[in-house]
Amino acid sequence: MPAEESEMPHAQPAVAPDIADWPRVAGALLERLRAEPVRVHAITNSAAQTLTANLLLAAGGVPSLTVAPEEAPAFASRAAALLVNLGTLDHDRRAAIPWAIAAARGGTKPWVLDPVFVDASPPRLDLARLCLAGHPCIVRCNPSEFAALAGAEASPDAAAAFARAHDTVVALTGPTDWVTDGDAFLAIENGHPLMAQVTAMGCAATALIAAFAASSGATPLEAAASALLVTGIAGEIAGAAAGGPGTFQPLFLDAIASLDADTIRIRARIA
Amino acid sequence: MPAEESEMPHAQPAVAPDIADWPRVAGALLERLRAEPVRVHAITNSAAQTLTANLLLAAGGVPSLTVAPEEAPAFASRAAALLVNLGTLDHDRRAAIPWAIAAARGGTKPWVLDPVFVDASPPRLDLARLCLAGHPCIVRCNPSEFAALAGAEASPDAAAAFARAHDTVVALTGPTDWVTDGDAFLAIENGHPLMAQVTAMGCAATALIAAFAASSGATPLEAAASALLVTGIAGEIAGAAAGGPGTFQPLFLDAIASLDADTIRIRARIA
Amino acid sequence: MPAEESEMPHAQPAVAPDIADWPRVAGALLERLRAEPVRVHAITNSAAQTLTANLLLAAGGVPSLTVAPEEAPAFASRAAALLVNLGTLDHDRRAAIPWAIAAARGGTKPWVLDPVFVDASPPRLDLARLCLAGHPCIVRCNPSEFAALAGAEASPDAAAAFARAHDTVVALTGPTDWVTDGDAFLAIENGHPLMAQVTAMGCAATALIAAFAASSGATPLEAAASALLVTGIAGEIAGAAAGGPGTFQPLFLDAIASLDADTIRIRARIA
Repeated sequence: MPAEESEMPHAQPAVAPDIADWPRVAGALLERLRAEPVRVHAITNSAAQTLTANLLLAAGGVPSLTVAPEEAPAFASRAAALLVNLGTLDHDRRAAIPWAIAAARGGTKPWVLDPVFVDASPPRLDLARLCLAGHPCIVRCNPSEFAALAGAEASPDAAAAFARAHDTVVALTGPTDWVTDGDAFLAIENGHPLMAQVTAMGCAATALIAAFAASSGATPLEAAASALLVTGIAGEIAGAAAGGPGTFQPLFLDAIASLDADTIRIRARIA
Repeated sequence: MPAEESEMPHAQPAVAPDIADWPRVAGALLERLRAEPVRVHAITNSAAQTLTANLLLAAGGVPSLTVAPEEAPAFASRAAALLVNLGTLDHDRRAAIPWAIAAARGGTKPWVLDPVFVDASPPRLDLARLCLAGHPCIVRCNPSEFAALAGAEASPDAAAAFARAHDTVVALTGPTDWVTDGDAFLAIENGHPLMAQVTAMGCAATALIAAFAASSGATPLEAAASALLVTGIAGEIAGAAAGGPGTFQPLFLDAIASLDADTIRIRARIA
Repeated sequence: MPAEESEMPHAQPAVAPDIADWPRVAGALLERLRAEPVRVHAITNSAAQTLTANLLLAAGGVPSLTVAPEEAPAFASRAAALLVNLGTLDHDRRAAIPWAIAAARGGTKPWVLDPVFVDASPPRLDLARLCLAGHPCIVRCNPSEFAALAGAEASPDAAAAFARAHDTVVALTGPTDWVTDGDAFLAIENGHPLMAQVTAMGCAATALIAAFAASSGATPLEAAASALLVTGIAGEIAGAAAGGPGTFQPLFLDAIASLDADTIRIRARIA
């Protein structure tokens, strides 16, 4: 491993703060993103691109989305973080992903992997494994995707073992979100059932993980936990006001844009 | 024709129920989809992908959307139905479509064709004709697309003749929707003018046709008529509450998610 | 330059009307678009496609969006105007753009260039310069993109010099929009801060510029100024009612659909 990699944020073991500190960390990261917008380059699936860009904008980030292999390195290099989502994996995306990862690593920028539907397509699973070898600082997935990637049923122990084996943070999302760096472990219980009825909600949340991971001093564990806390709480606020999955999405973006540290502190449910 | 094809649902002539039965069939299919979610793989145009996924999720289905030729067969094989929409027909879509159709046919899964804009592009019309030879169980189109594909102006007789000639169901949508398997004929008068001011509404409705076509025991005629009845009624409910085409779309998805069999029965207008 | 090009609308120097006339021109162009819908073919980035189509539909236009090189010329030929947006510039878009421009020019249809993110990618800047040689009647961009393309900081003088040098209209958008054909100069102060928090708002507004440019008798200056006035005023109306960037977008489309000439006249703020 080249020397500079040992200085990458994800290579530093996170010191787990007290449970009571997580809402404060999430509020601070959200407020810092608004005060100092960071660029996130997102290679993401075609159904997620618009929501991903709009979530980043609502939270204070600056998105770019190109998937062309000739251009992805330039966009990844000028961004502060990279998201690689394997959905709708067409020729351009497949060719662009290794170059974008190389550009992010060359600039010691954090990058986050979202291995969408690797349980459904063997060639996509192969690519996800190659991506893992490129040291994402965080892997966000659902239980089916985790099981395909890890070769083990999703559980707190399996997630921690996977995080240690790959020197990464695992964010396993579902009704309860699990986040672990192999040492510390959080269970985030915020969220709303309507989040599962809107396409690409998890994909978009992963872009916020990437934006937070670019915040100087934030560990990948803090970035992942904070972004899932922010999106889960915004989902609860939107879900309480929505008439269904259609009105939920605009209200969710409104809730992201107006969320403050006090609301996060009051609403956070972390075990 | 291989032997197993004679067992495909669309090869069985539908017995037309009484007019009064259609709302009951639509309500039953919608409730069954919610109770037993089915996967639909949609190769659809880039402007329709998000709405298509969200309509399927709102109705109880599970969407996948990849258009990569290497992956489309795997996704089509694990889905219960396939939608092929010819919009934004780029290289990947053009290459993926025959493989996805072959995978659906190999698994005796129903597949539905939406020949978007075949009236505008000769190479697309050629591809649509090749697709027709692959026996879609339902073809959903507008009058201009029908005329290009059938070589005849849209009319009840022309639609029935086309359905018989291609052993399929024709769903011709407009202010009044016509549905025919060549024998039975329905005219569905539900709907709202704002549906024509939102892109991809017809494309998304066709995905619901595919989801209903996967319901065991449902004929293609029942699937097409039910999905157009459900979307037309949801459109009326949303249209009555919307301030224009922008607020219409989220309200339409809400209406799909909360629609029940009683409302369908009361509101259905079928001739 | 072939003889027929001298007859293209953008080659005719616009006579600048009095400031008081601009709202009237914008109202007339919007009402004409509703009375006589025109087709706009938009080669645009994947995050902008849905909003672009929905904005055109809300304003009375008819969108098409295909980016396939084999089909783009046919779609550009049957449309009344072409939009070329350089975002998410993948292989298909890169190959389709020259053919679509050639088809528009061959039919003496106006075409509009939106050089998205040319400040971020050298190969994209090269393509934008080739596009400029194809005589777009209007170039819509932000100050960073202008600076990359023009090699000069954005200013009224630099915009006018660029417009004269390339025989085009420059529409430079930001908190205040500047529009110039090198002779007349407008500053449009309508708009709302939430417009910058929704992805692809500028891209979609450029499609309305293209639709207005297709109106017979409208100069490119009138088309650009009118579309930015209409979108800025609709943005103000939506912004006053929205709870954030999420609810802003549907309300913006509603406002476009219901905007009338009187409201434009009352609300226009032009310097």
